[in-house]
Amino acid sequence: MNTETLVMNIGGSFLVKNESLATFYTTELKTEESIMIQEAATQFLETEIESNLEELESVAGIDKTPDLLKKCGDLGFLSLEVSEKYGGVNLSLKDVLHYVESMSKGYSFAGALGVQTSIGIAPVLLYGSEYLKEQYIPKMTDGSFISAFALTEPNAGSDANAGKTKATINTEGNYVINGQKAWISNAGIANMFIVFAKIEDDKNLSAFIVDRDFGGISFGPEEKKMGLSGWSTRQVFFENTIVPSTHLLGERNRGLKIALNTLNTGRIKLGAACLGVSKLALEHSVNYAIEREQFGKSILEFGAMKDKIAKMTSKIFTNEAIVYRVANSIDENCEALSQSGMPFSEAKIEALKEFSIECAIAKVYGSEAQDFIVDESIQIYGGMGFSAESPVERLYRGARISRIFEGTNEINRLVIIKEFLKKGMKGEIDFFSPYTKLMSDLSEPIAAFSEDTIERYEQLVDNLRFLCVLVTGVCAQQYMTQLTEEQEIAMHISDMLITVYAIESVALRIKKLKEVDKLNPEIHYPILKTIGFDCFNEMENTVKNLIACFDKKEDAKIIEQAFTKYAQLPHNNIKEARRKICAYVEESKGVYNLSN
Amino acid sequence: MNTETLVMNIGGSFLVKNESLATFYTTELKTEESIMIQEAATQFLETEIESNLEELESVAGIDKTPDLLKKCGDLGFLSLEVSEKYGGVNLSLKDVLHYVESMSKGYSFAGALGVQTSIGIAPVLLYGSEYLKEQYIPKMTDGSFISAFALTEPNAGSDANAGKTKATINTEGNYVINGQKAWISNAGIANMFIVFAKIEDDKNLSAFIVDRDFGGISFGPEEKKMGLSGWSTRQVFFENTIVPSTHLLGERNRGLKIALNTLNTGRIKLGAACLGVSKLALEHSVNYAIEREQFGKSILEFGAMKDKIAKMTSKIFTNEAIVYRVANSIDENCEALSQSGMPFSEAKIEALKEFSIECAIAKVYGSEAQDFIVDESIQIYGGMGFSAESPVERLYRGARISRIFEGTNEINRLVIIKEFLKKGMKGEIDFFSPYTKLMSDLSEPIAAFSEDTIERYEQLVDNLRFLCVLVTGVCAQQYMTQLTEEQEIAMHISDMLITVYAIESVALRIKKLKEVDKLNPEIHYPILKTIGFDCFNEMENTVKNLIACFDKKEDAKIIEQAFTKYAQLPHNNIKEARRKICAYVEESKGVYNLSN
Repeated sequence: MNTETLVMNIGGSFLVKNESLATFYTTELKTEESIMIQEAATQFLETEIESNLEELESVAGIDKTPDLLKKCGDLGFLSLEVSEKYGGVNLSLKDVLHYVESMSKGYSFAGALGVQTSIGIAPVLLYGSEYLKEQYIPKMTDGSFISAFALTEPNAGSDANAGKTKATINTEGNYVINGQKAWISNAGIANMFIVFAKIEDDKNLSAFIVDRDFGGISFGPEEKKMGLSGWSTRQVFFENTIVPSTHLLGERNRGLKIALNTLNTGRIKLGAACLGVSKLALEHSVNYAIEREQFGKSILEFGAMKDKIAKMTSKIFTNEAIVYRVANSIDENCEALSQSGMPFSEAKIEALKEFSIECAIAKVYGSEAQDFIVDESIQIYGGMGFSAESPVERLYRGARISRIFEGTNEINRLVIIKEFLKKGMKGEIDFFSPYTKLMSDLSEPIAAFSEDTIERYEQLVDNLRFLCVLVTGVCAQQYMTQLTEEQEIAMHISDMLITVYAIESVALRIKKLKEVDKLNPEIHYPILKTIGFDCFNEMENTVKNLIACFDKKEDAKIIEQAFTKYAQLPHNNIKEARRKICAYVEESKGVYNLSN
Repeated sequence: MNTETLVMNIGGSFLVKNESLATFYTTELKTEESIMIQEAATQFLETEIESNLEELESVAGIDKTPDLLKKCGDLGFLSLEVSEKYGGVNLSLKDVLHYVESMSKGYSFAGALGVQTSIGIAPVLLYGSEYLKEQYIPKMTDGSFISAFALTEPNAGSDANAGKTKATINTEGNYVINGQKAWISNAGIANMFIVFAKIEDDKNLSAFIVDRDFGGISFGPEEKKMGLSGWSTRQVFFENTIVPSTHLLGERNRGLKIALNTLNTGRIKLGAACLGVSKLALEHSVNYAIEREQFGKSILEFGAMKDKIAKMTSKIFTNEAIVYRVANSIDENCEALSQSGMPFSEAKIEALKEFSIECAIAKVYGSEAQDFIVDESIQIYGGMGFSAESPVERLYRGARISRIFEGTNEINRLVIIKEFLKKGMKGEIDFFSPYTKLMSDLSEPIAAFSEDTIERYEQLVDNLRFLCVLVTGVCAQQYMTQLTEEQEIAMHISDMLITVYAIESVALRIKKLKEVDKLNPEIHYPILKTIGFDCFNEMENTVKNLIACFDKKEDAKIIEQAFTKYAQLPHNNIKEARRKICAYVEESKGVYNLSN
């Protein structure tokens, strides 16, 4: 393996380095193959899910899930990420996400399916021995063997390593597992569990593959949940469950690594799933608003409604730009490492780990955008939005878990800042030279904004990046390693990083669209202007909140100076831009497609 | 009747006139009697509701409601607003709201109870003939006769006057009602309906009292709702229902007035109900956060959690300041009018109408604060928050209707700006002289901020008021009567008015607490600082969004100038202030009481 000539993307470097447009990926570039898979997914949902939604969304739907998973297996949906060796097609992450986005419109079933592939098949493929892969991958991918991921315990949620489940080694050298797991998705229908437990007196978790029929496994009742009732969630109890020694997944003591890396892919996939749900909510909302008449006209003729639809659309555009940008960065690294001779599964793990900051950003942005969107959907529906007969009510309830699972958004924000600082300290991200340069240039004025729309917003992005670098640097110097203990400050810096990544992704996407001749200024310029405006305001607000974390104004002098210098936004009529966006979406009856 | 010597409060004048501190009311001043009623309500909830919550919150709870209402009747809860003549105690609005706030913690039952009193007994008392009052009030107040308010129709929601329900007059001179009503709360258990319908070819609605046993009434099934499932909601169909001529409520063609005035009281009561639910959510959240340990400590030791608890607390403090300030203004007017000889019911209608702007503000602020608070509660609970076993999950689902009913928050925002402009045009609010004065002083600097905390925030409030006056004036001049058609701009101005009323209410409350020697600077100053900070930022953000509604920056020149002049906030360490607030609330185990 020769890693010296590798050109690798560095996760987290977006703050200090311009990304190459040549390799930038946006959803408009998706391949025919990817579109076909999306269509197949949509077809599956129409035939199998939507036609029977009431039942599938009730607890009775849980019993229907195994058959549906089997059908997905037959259609090849469970093998998309699997290597050719195991009968799969080894899709790139971005193509997997196109598929996930489409499939996410399947409500509870989408959840069960996601567990099977993302935190079922994926960890076995990435960490399993050849023996385990041969044993499990074929029956997992054909849908006959359903998996669950048993990490969380009643007293170990965010703090996963605090789990009390224990694996002792018996005289035959096999493991004997005892413990209790909580909130286990798919538990009621699972044939196997990826169980995290500490071996003997280990300080760290190990992971095991445990079949349901190994014995000693019992279950709590189905949890009653706010939403997604057709998706099994139970407690799982292990009492002297005997697990063959061959069923250790990965290395002893390395279970937390497996869990965390699995969560990285879970996070980016959740970002894509939130995107799909958001588009569905938008479509319902636009059509309802067109049809619903009050005061003698369609309510979509009212400015307050146009404003909502436009904001929803802009957030979807941003979420989409983020998700596929992250996926592409990971794909590129994975391919480069793979070509250099690294085994594929290892390359994938490395690539995902490298972009843990971006995966967390995609999860936080996607889930918060989704919540904004489903909430506005309810408001647009008015009284009907509170009715379980409306399609958006179900979306609203189901969406609420997205800010909680795969790490709460608070935990994810901490991941973002911690990883960023770690990479800065290690020199993996060259943070300190741009910081030093920006510090010495602080009193110089910024360049006048270009008249060209795209260039102008590139400048805006740069200014927000510079502001973020300066603020982060000042806080890092002041608090050093204590920064992440001052969580309020850490959260604000994470918010800044998220905002920078968001607006940067949108600006790059639009520049790319121009390059590939898919730019439609009628829609893309209003989109760029409104997102630029919103991100700018968010950034301003965050910095103000951050300054208010200091005792005296003087302590935040450099931040204020940087703020005064960089917080400049050229004027635009955002109200009109939003109205144009709404008109465009209305035209397409809410089927979100801004590139046709 | 002599109205010439009356000293009346003018609704909406808060923007241009300092309120007298002498008569300002805050919850800390509540009487022993009021506290006793609150305690009785709390006792009732513990005995009758909490002990049987699971059943009461299911559809089965609907059948239990009539008995519970009867118990409330026996306890006198249904007569609190009723005059002595009908066996009531004629409580002031503020005392009624103290009671409503306590009772709002009764989930679905609180809804059914609210319909019975606020939009059942109240309109009969205020608009009913002596005959109708004698017929209905006694059996309504003893809880044996349950009422429902039948206004909404499938195609007449926000646009209530668009209803198609018809009342023809038969040869005996009685009314024959035909039509369909939707989303009727209490419908399944109601003995009577206040029905809105158009008589013959009238353009406007009239209101009728219709007994269930008048015949020709049928029902849709119980609506499946996002929350509050123990509260009956059905469609109601009238087919040749014959209603005696004596059952016209109020005057012919004046039904919409009755509906809108009833909504005024519904709105302020909803503000108080949101306050009660918010306090309950805070209490649950604080206790959960204290008990829940992760990473070796209570999660309340983490800054991100402290930040949430403090923000929840500050919003509750603000909501509380608003609700009781509005109630007191209405009480004062009602009393003054009453003493001048106006019949009590007329005085109450007039007083409520006068404060329709403030009632709408209380509804919008209260429901949005509540949503923020229940949402953060879910986040604090983490995975458990998505479980129907957690107390906050139910609060979250139930809360979602508050931004929709009693007029959506969008409709309420339009009410705020429309009423304000109308009063300005009519000269009821002297808007133009302060506007002219502020315009001519625009280039003069503002006074330096006082060092005294309370004075300093009074100055801040003044600055925000002046900014709001200038912005509103500029927009009113530019758009004239078209302003409310430009809904995006109208919404922003409403937001400014809400923010001014909020921070002004908080500053007045704290000044009043000092006056009556109930000030505790340890908690009240951090509260004042954080609310000042948040309101200031909201105002800034609104103004920026408003400027972005103009084509060119120059068109918004005066707004920018006003913004530069007045958007000045003295520095404070808000992070520390929030931590102090959280510590205070933690100390009391989340039982919100900032004045002990």
